[in-house]
Amino acid sequence: MSGVDRGAVQEAAVRIAPFVHRTPVLRSHSLDEWIGAEVFVKAEHLQRVGAFKYRGATNAVQSLRESEARRGVAAHSSGNHAAALALAAATRGVPAYVVMPANASAAKRAAVERYGGEVTTCDNTLDARRAALADVLGRTGAIEIHPFDDERVIAGAGTAALELTQEVADVDVFVTPIGGGGLCSGTCIAVAPARVIGGLPRDRVSTRADGLRTGVSGRTGAILREHGVDQIIVDEPEIVAAMRVVWERTKQLIEPSAAVAFAAARAAALHGELDGARVGVICSGGNVDLDALSW
Amino acid sequence: MSGVDRGAVQEAAVRIAPFVHRTPVLRSHSLDEWIGAEVFVKAEHLQRVGAFKYRGATNAVQSLRESEARRGVAAHSSGNHAAALALAAATRGVPAYVVMPANASAAKRAAVERYGGEVTTCDNTLDARRAALADVLGRTGAIEIHPFDDERVIAGAGTAALELTQEVADVDVFVTPIGGGGLCSGTCIAVAPARVIGGLPRDRVSTRADGLRTGVSGRTGAILREHGVDQIIVDEPEIVAAMRVVWERTKQLIEPSAAVAFAAARAAALHGELDGARVGVICSGGNVDLDALSW
Repeated sequence: MSGVDRGAVQEAAVRIAPFVHRTPVLRSHSLDEWIGAEVFVKAEHLQRVGAFKYRGATNAVQSLRESEARRGVAAHSSGNHAAALALAAATRGVPAYVVMPANASAAKRAAVERYGGEVTTCDNTLDARRAALADVLGRTGAIEIHPFDDERVIAGAGTAALELTQEVADVDVFVTPIGGGGLCSGTCIAVAPARVIGGLPRDRVSTRADGLRTGVSGRTGAILREHGVDQIIVDEPEIVAAMRVVWERTKQLIEPSAAVAFAAARAAALHGELDGARVGVICSGGNVDLDALSW
Repeated sequence: MSGVDRGAVQEAAVRIAPFVHRTPVLRSHSLDEWIGAEVFVKAEHLQRVGAFKYRGATNAVQSLRESEARRGVAAHSSGNHAAALALAAATRGVPAYVVMPANASAAKRAAVERYGGEVTTCDNTLDARRAALADVLGRTGAIEIHPFDDERVIAGAGTAALELTQEVADVDVFVTPIGGGGLCSGTCIAVAPARVIGGLPRDRVSTRADGLRTGVSGRTGAILREHGVDQIIVDEPEIVAAMRVVWERTKQLIEPSAAVAFAAARAAALHGELDGARVGVICSGGNVDLDALSW
């Protein structure tokens, strides 16, 4: 059994409310047509730092005792958790130390620094990242906030789905992407016993869904199994198609990792699994690498 | 004096209300910082067909007597007016005949056809477009609905700013892009005597703001002069910068023509013209040519 329950998600919602955006739920007739079901999009790409990650980071940072918080917080991350932790720490007025691989995008690094985070650069291997983080923790005494393998982070992530259930009645199925499994775990706990579908890219190592280039932990994997999450694997062309449709039809700039959830919802509908269902899609983020586009 | 007055805009608002989206007004702290003023974004990129053009087209089509409407409507357009007219006609159950140049984007043409419009292709010169339209009008007896040189279209365009004034009190300055001048004219009439700024691309022929590759008519030019519109010319790099900032900070996919208004607002603020002002930006559309991006 996980130590996170619905009460923890509800407590997290109260704790983070002063700091996070209550993001809107978006509807689009032509998106419904494309997916093949009635879809309610929880717009976490409009969350602060452009991703749901800010919920978990804020819940973790705001949960710390004052004596802990003063030491600062730390993590290794090449993506949204890095920026989320930096802003969550700045909001509490404590330091954030972020280890980022040298190949992280300049935009992601700039975001961390804009929020006042201290960046340590390392090689792009898991070993190098862990070693660099251990150095930082030893040097600063900061508290590590893991991007997903952390009960406070999972509870915070679950608040997005909790808000969706408060705003829209009778959502039958919830769909999230799965990378480390924090968002999907938190969603399961928030909406149980409702059905949850998790979308995964087929090739976890080289997928364009850069937020999902990781695997579940013992903790998140157990929560997903316990709640019977349906895992749907999507291919890169399906991710691109979903991203394009959302951009074109809703004018919302979502990132590839978020598109994985839309692609998974469409695949489920095509298999007849969503007939007549009201589907809540947790749109995880909108931090597209704009430098990679032609202007 | 123009024949369009505030009453005409208010009547248009009532006439089109059943058919158009009442688009939201968006706020973004970091967009405010970039522009240098408090900005309220009227999100017409979230309008049906992805552009404010649907307001004017709907007002014109819904204004027709039944005997006129039955003949259908027609226009030449390579852009948003084409799709807007097609959907407005389909909504009233009458035909739309659209003349499009052969070099119009496949996406724009597909949009017109998706809404049931009949497309006639011609060469990409103004003469060829006019000749092809004359042929269509002669063959079908359809009513021409000009994209901007039309009082019903101007009144419809003004409803976006009217809604903004209803939703947000005390907006001091309104900013729109200027192409044919329909949106800016309608805005002036809707918000008079409030100050209106119009943004124009420096090179009207080859600007990436493809919705603005035209000039004002006698009618719209007179309205702009009568209301003392400040015209601010922006360069292509300013348009790109504005578009990138809006995409990055608000996750809203706006098109280059809309970015011209944001660029003009920033330029005005840099010149000290918006100190302490509450600024309403009419974000005209979101129909980006996604085929031109790298996926």
